Amino acid sequence: MNQAAYAAVDWGTSSFRLWLVDGEGRALAERRSDEGMMAAAKSGFATVLQSHLAAVSAPPDLPVIICGMAGARQGWVEAGYVDTPAPLAAILAGAVIVPEESRDIRILPGIAQRDRDAPDVMRGEETQLLGALGHDAASEALVCMPGTHSKWADVKSGTVARFATFMTGELFSAISRETILSHAIAGAEAAENLDAFRDSVIAAFKTPAQATNLLFRVRSRQLLFGGRPAAARETLSGTLIGLELAAGLAKDVPHGSVTLVASGRLAALYRLAFDTLSVAVQSIDADEAVLAGLSRAAAAIWKR
Amino acid sequence: MNQAAYAAVDWGTSSFRLWLVDGEGRALAERRSDEGMMAAAKSGFATVLQSHLAAVSAPPDLPVIICGMAGARQGWVEAGYVDTPAPLAAILAGAVIVPEESRDIRILPGIAQRDRDAPDVMRGEETQLLGALGHDAASEALVCMPGTHSKWADVKSGTVARFATFMTGELFSAISRETILSHAIAGAEAAENLDAFRDSVIAAFKTPAQATNLLFRVRSRQLLFGGRPAAARETLSGTLIGLELAAGLAKDVPHGSVTLVASGRLAALYRLAFDTLSVAVQSIDADEAVLAGLSRAAAAIWKR
Repeated sequence: MNQAAYAAVDWGTSSFRLWLVDGEGRALAERRSDEGMMAAAKSGFATVLQSHLAAVSAPPDLPVIICGMAGARQGWVEAGYVDTPAPLAAILAGAVIVPEESRDIRILPGIAQRDRDAPDVMRGEETQLLGALGHDAASEALVCMPGTHSKWADVKSGTVARFATFMTGELFSAISRETILSHAIAGAEAAENLDAFRDSVIAAFKTPAQATNLLFRVRSRQLLFGGRPAAARETLSGTLIGLELAAGLAKDVPHGSVTLVASGRLAALYRLAFDTLSVAVQSIDADEAVLAGLSRAAAAIWKR
Repeated sequence: MNQAAYAAVDWGTSSFRLWLVDGEGRALAERRSDEGMMAAAKSGFATVLQSHLAAVSAPPDLPVIICGMAGARQGWVEAGYVDTPAPLAAILAGAVIVPEESRDIRILPGIAQRDRDAPDVMRGEETQLLGALGHDAASEALVCMPGTHSKWADVKSGTVARFATFMTGELFSAISRETILSHAIAGAEAAENLDAFRDSVIAAFKTPAQATNLLFRVRSRQLLFGGRPAAARETLSGTLIGLELAAGLAKDVPHGSVTLVASGRLAALYRLAFDTLSVAVQSIDADEAVLAGLSRAAAAIWKR
């Protein structure tokens, strides 16, 4: 096994991921847990981090690079924001040092859009962008990063020009648990009704104003015609994703292709949604992107 | 005091309302409680009804007319649906008798739109329509009935031609309680920030696809610029109502005026929203409308 050069951490609101990384940016070991910012704010960020470092036998002087909500005001140490238009290189330069720690621990800043008509913030996705596109990318990209709070970013010449957040994932969760649709979706099996998903993507994309009517139809359809919980869940998912795509694709798509940064089931769902709308996609794995971004940051900060 | 001719009940999912009514349709007494269908399904519909009848000293042979969720499959006695195009007169004819009760108790049916592409159902609002418009109305109306599940109905010559449900009220409740916006809204005082409400109605009406981005901006705005919880709440409310109006007003408005059937704070909010979009409104009080509808039904059924 190669020697570890640093540890890389993606510390989200509700998830924690750590990689032990060698000098070439290759992951030697990985840890995942649900000790995100919310949990760590109670148990202590240093404690959570140290337990995972110990579990991968990290030496006591191994440096650590962190992105995500650990840098929020309610996180470990506030890492501030780089303002738009935000050169991705400025992310590297904006890392803050966690004080009073025996090892060298740095937290990367987020990006803020201080536009009173369209204020927005991201923390963690800027590191995915850095990893997916590189900070000196000459080309232009429209990047879709799905999730609890999906981000769409216009990136030009290594600079985030504009971005927008959509509450797609969080609304899916709240609506499927906390509204009348919870009954329609209860017991949905894993198998997908892809027709229901595709139809809903198209319907919400074409008539976004109808979104909350499309959602209620899930309930009405079950009452009047029956219907499987899986179809109900995919209709909810397709409606919310179709609504997001209606906004995200309202602008020109550079080179006719959206850059999709996503992993697993979410990547498959969004690819299917873009395919349904006949929009070309360049897919980049989100896990690989964030690790690549953290590695670029580590290489720049510690000149390895 | 005049003699009671019947009791009229509006029995919703989470609310119960009863009026003691004289032969001229005037309310002699009123009861309100939160013993809606959900609560009554546990404690017993007959028990809940009898307790309120006893509280207003209703004679044991007083007949009762009921509309709303008491007629749902999971309610007291299923009252079925009148299918669209639904003559409001058919509501009267479709009342079902609650069996094995010593007094004459009737539950009015709902309306179903059995269109596989746009299935929809209502229970209770059909009685508001009956009261607001009458079953032999010659004119044409676009009716907006705001609530947990807002209904928009096209009514022509006393017949509900089409209708659509929007989950506006339920989404307001779920989003304000169960998402990241709960922090932004927490502690919102009663006073309204009308500018934030109006701006949000316009923004969502103009670009409905941006709705979930408009919602996240509530959070971003507080992080970057501060902002009062009241403004956050009115932004959420305005965004959801603006989205609903974008769909509801996409069709022609007969006689250039929407018929708004609503009460209290909701009536004021929707009037402000329509005013912001320069759409004329005819306002009808929802409480009066449902009582008038129940009274029409009682008069037709018991020939008073």
